[in-house]
Amino acid sequence: MSNKFADRISALRDMMRESGWDAVLVSGSDPHSSEYPAPRWKQVEWLSGFTGEAGDLVITQNHVGLWTDTRYFIQARRQLEGTGIELHKTRIPEQVLIPEWLAHFAFGEKNIINIAIDGLCQRVSDIEEIKSSFDDDKEVRIVSVPDMLDSIWTDRPAIPDTRIIDLDDSITGESCDDKVDWLRAFLREKGCDAMLISSLDEIAWILNIRANDIDYNPLAISYLIISQDEVRWFVRENYDDVYISLAEGFGRLFVDPGTLNFHLFSILDKNNILTGPSPIKLRKAVKNSVEIEGMKKIHIEDGLAMEKFLFWLDSSIKNGEKITEWDAARKLGEYRAEIPGYAGDSFETISAYGPGAALPHYITPRENAPVIEKGGLYLCDSGGQYTNGTTDITRTVPTGPCSFLEMEDYTLVLKGHIELAMAVFPKGTAGCQIDYAARSPLWQAMRNFGHGTGHGVGFYLGVHEGPQDIRQNFNRQPILPGMITSDEPGIYREGMHGIRHENLILCTEAGHNEFGEWLKFETITLCHFDTGAIIRNLLSDAEIRWLNNYNETVYKTLSPRLPDDVSKWLREKTKAI
Amino acid sequence: MSNKFADRISALRDMMRESGWDAVLVSGSDPHSSEYPAPRWKQVEWLSGFTGEAGDLVITQNHVGLWTDTRYFIQARRQLEGTGIELHKTRIPEQVLIPEWLAHFAFGEKNIINIAIDGLCQRVSDIEEIKSSFDDDKEVRIVSVPDMLDSIWTDRPAIPDTRIIDLDDSITGESCDDKVDWLRAFLREKGCDAMLISSLDEIAWILNIRANDIDYNPLAISYLIISQDEVRWFVRENYDDVYISLAEGFGRLFVDPGTLNFHLFSILDKNNILTGPSPIKLRKAVKNSVEIEGMKKIHIEDGLAMEKFLFWLDSSIKNGEKITEWDAARKLGEYRAEIPGYAGDSFETISAYGPGAALPHYITPRENAPVIEKGGLYLCDSGGQYTNGTTDITRTVPTGPCSFLEMEDYTLVLKGHIELAMAVFPKGTAGCQIDYAARSPLWQAMRNFGHGTGHGVGFYLGVHEGPQDIRQNFNRQPILPGMITSDEPGIYREGMHGIRHENLILCTEAGHNEFGEWLKFETITLCHFDTGAIIRNLLSDAEIRWLNNYNETVYKTLSPRLPDDVSKWLREKTKAI
Repeated sequence: MSNKFADRISALRDMMRESGWDAVLVSGSDPHSSEYPAPRWKQVEWLSGFTGEAGDLVITQNHVGLWTDTRYFIQARRQLEGTGIELHKTRIPEQVLIPEWLAHFAFGEKNIINIAIDGLCQRVSDIEEIKSSFDDDKEVRIVSVPDMLDSIWTDRPAIPDTRIIDLDDSITGESCDDKVDWLRAFLREKGCDAMLISSLDEIAWILNIRANDIDYNPLAISYLIISQDEVRWFVRENYDDVYISLAEGFGRLFVDPGTLNFHLFSILDKNNILTGPSPIKLRKAVKNSVEIEGMKKIHIEDGLAMEKFLFWLDSSIKNGEKITEWDAARKLGEYRAEIPGYAGDSFETISAYGPGAALPHYITPRENAPVIEKGGLYLCDSGGQYTNGTTDITRTVPTGPCSFLEMEDYTLVLKGHIELAMAVFPKGTAGCQIDYAARSPLWQAMRNFGHGTGHGVGFYLGVHEGPQDIRQNFNRQPILPGMITSDEPGIYREGMHGIRHENLILCTEAGHNEFGEWLKFETITLCHFDTGAIIRNLLSDAEIRWLNNYNETVYKTLSPRLPDDVSKWLREKTKAI
Repeated sequence: MSNKFADRISALRDMMRESGWDAVLVSGSDPHSSEYPAPRWKQVEWLSGFTGEAGDLVITQNHVGLWTDTRYFIQARRQLEGTGIELHKTRIPEQVLIPEWLAHFAFGEKNIINIAIDGLCQRVSDIEEIKSSFDDDKEVRIVSVPDMLDSIWTDRPAIPDTRIIDLDDSITGESCDDKVDWLRAFLREKGCDAMLISSLDEIAWILNIRANDIDYNPLAISYLIISQDEVRWFVRENYDDVYISLAEGFGRLFVDPGTLNFHLFSILDKNNILTGPSPIKLRKAVKNSVEIEGMKKIHIEDGLAMEKFLFWLDSSIKNGEKITEWDAARKLGEYRAEIPGYAGDSFETISAYGPGAALPHYITPRENAPVIEKGGLYLCDSGGQYTNGTTDITRTVPTGPCSFLEMEDYTLVLKGHIELAMAVFPKGTAGCQIDYAARSPLWQAMRNFGHGTGHGVGFYLGVHEGPQDIRQNFNRQPILPGMITSDEPGIYREGMHGIRHENLILCTEAGHNEFGEWLKFETITLCHFDTGAIIRNLLSDAEIRWLNNYNETVYKTLSPRLPDDVSKWLREKTKAI
């Protein structure tokens, strides 16, 4: 085990022995169940060296395990090499999740088990799952220690404190007052006096504010309590006042155990709360007309940056320049930074050539990044945060001649992307019921990808948001008009190449008839798909029509605002096939 | 309200008043949670006149409601006309199921509610659902009255008593002893001493017996207890001995609350049982190689009968003969009856011309059945029970010129059928994750059907069996190699026409590669699809290839055993398009 991480695990194990804990569960999240935590809460990384965006650690005296999903298997294997930390794979059929592992594999015949957690960084629902997974004859004691690692993590970063930005109603399309009124009506209907909100994107949405506390996420670390006559925001120097306020009491409190942290939940009066899924999540996901217009406009700007970038890349490689993956990522960032309202990237750009692209969440190295060679495939997955919205786009482009397998995979993934983009479905349909559209062209050729097909995307908020998604999981949330979701099938062949084609698609009404109400998607991302790696006869006539029509729309929309050389190049690139 | 049914409801209401019951729940099932009950348990029909295969009644002093699903809406509307019984629609997005209706719409502010049931005909799980749907401040008392209607249903039919048939191991592929050994191992693993089995098809499967107690279902009304050293079958004169035996005790008992009736469950010692889904259900659904061979052979025989029938129909109509829907159904039955091992139909044949076919579960009238006219579409959904297996097939055929809409619907349904038949999918995939294959060709044209795409089919057992299915519901059961399922999309236009194309498909291995293990379907039904109503350019090249290949296989397999005139006709009918 690498010395640094071994020392830290060892220090934690000392703490465990002193305290009589059988296991410590370290979450990859923060007190707000954020997808990406600020450095202060990157506890998993600090203990293990694993930098993936999703991962939880369990430490016992004779085992350290990291649980992470398909996206990070290759990365985890590399980063954990030599540490002695065992990788537990999730989102695979034979997965053994943490609750089950703790209940059945960790403690043998032991009957009383003490599991320590940093209650700030564990959701109520996670702890419930752990408790209920144990057989009745076992006694599980959850010991919650807020900021547990503080005593051994001496240089732990502070809580971030970036500038708060107020968004005008002309941008959000709905005032904070109106949103609060809506929430109050919801609370009255539920017989509640107030709601405690800890989810940062929900707070940002309802207050119409943004900040930069978390990389790529324009959020402010805070809590919010909305009662019938008060809006109390616990932010910056008031962050910890939430405890005092909760102690004072707000009457009957509505909380969402799916996001609320265990520590905060543990101090609430359980006789005076109502638990349930936050109504903000769904309402936030259904964009209003102003948000939709903003998103469409910003996708024109983002598309211009993308086309300039792809032109630069194409020309540079043709000219024999030595461009690394890192150079390319930086260049794209520069183009995006020119866009008015740009507030940073929406996630770390994945810029990957050849085998690197086979890691779905590849981290482009700053130093000694691989050179993008002539020939084969280059993948770039990136996005921006703007005052008018959030973007997320993946383009995979041939940098010269490609093998038949590269072209076949490229075309099949595009076929899947197009099938989903063209889907029509009855109102009430959930994402898992249309996921097949994107997968079947791959499945028919016995190929597949290990990640979801689509995730919700926020409006100048998280690039991943719920409640809807398009994936194999049995998520019952229907896809509703106004929701924006990604469409991003892929194929990854370790050591060879990785392909992903991603646009954002907006769900819209398609009409109604005797069979009911119908929905469809409108693609809002604007950047051409390279036709150079396509095997035309793998596409159906309808798919070819879609592709030609899309590329033509991209050209017509963007070319008037592109420099002449880029525009001329794009004319060539978007020629009908 | 029609006098007969009004009188019966009124008699029941008298009983309710005397007993202080606020509601009576009458189930459409029997003590074995059979899909189709024997006449003795057709209580819903006796009370309401509704003859659909699925329906439950709730009677209060001021409301009688019938709950049934999409398949029976049109039928229920007709049969309930003038009875005052209200139709409550299920399997629609806005459905309010019985538990929710009882909890929130039936009794206003009343706090103590007495609900009477015939505990023999209600599953344990149904009653649990009802109880849990009520708010905590309500007290629900379930009053179980076995054979509740006996006092007012004076001519109630007796328990059936047909001949028991023993199946040879050469037919079932596995001896009863081996099946019992397997179940005993399962019970030991679960720490149980015995299992109480009440599901009739599970009993028939494990004992390798059949009977004819229920129309279309080759089953014997009975209970079964298998302990580590005994197999006790409670059948015929011993049927009621199950109570005595259970009173004696069998140690720790495994029971499936999803099929066990409430009455039997209520007499068990709750401290000495383990509840869970019956393992027999899944094992029975995965056919062994002997069963698969039997099913394939019987589908040749069934296909011969179907082709003779379709030839007869085609010729008769061409010759200007007046054939009614009923004549056609009878004729098909005659052809099937000639097959060695024929043991009756597997369900009541649906023989429907034109608008009649728009009712997915149309009942062909015995008297004054509609004539099958020249032109338009005729639908026939039928199947047989044979010693070697069970069949279920729907063919929709043009009887002459068709309208463009008929042809378009016909082709789109066939497209959906073929897409599912051609599907390739990774091991672990559930039916709801591939249901899209059959629906998307219809959805793209904003058409749909209100029933499932596929149901499991038994081996000389129920024509509908679980645990797998292919439909929109979130059933997590993966489709496994050896499972036989129907593939039957449709389109129904009230007052115009109905189309359904149905084959049985067997799940088989498709190979494995770096992306995992792959499965596909093999079609086992053998009967040509009529190409006369096809709009060729709505089909893809792959679909046309599948169709031509299928029709050619049908011709080659069946023609050597068909009379010359039928064979010649079939040659024409199966010409490649």
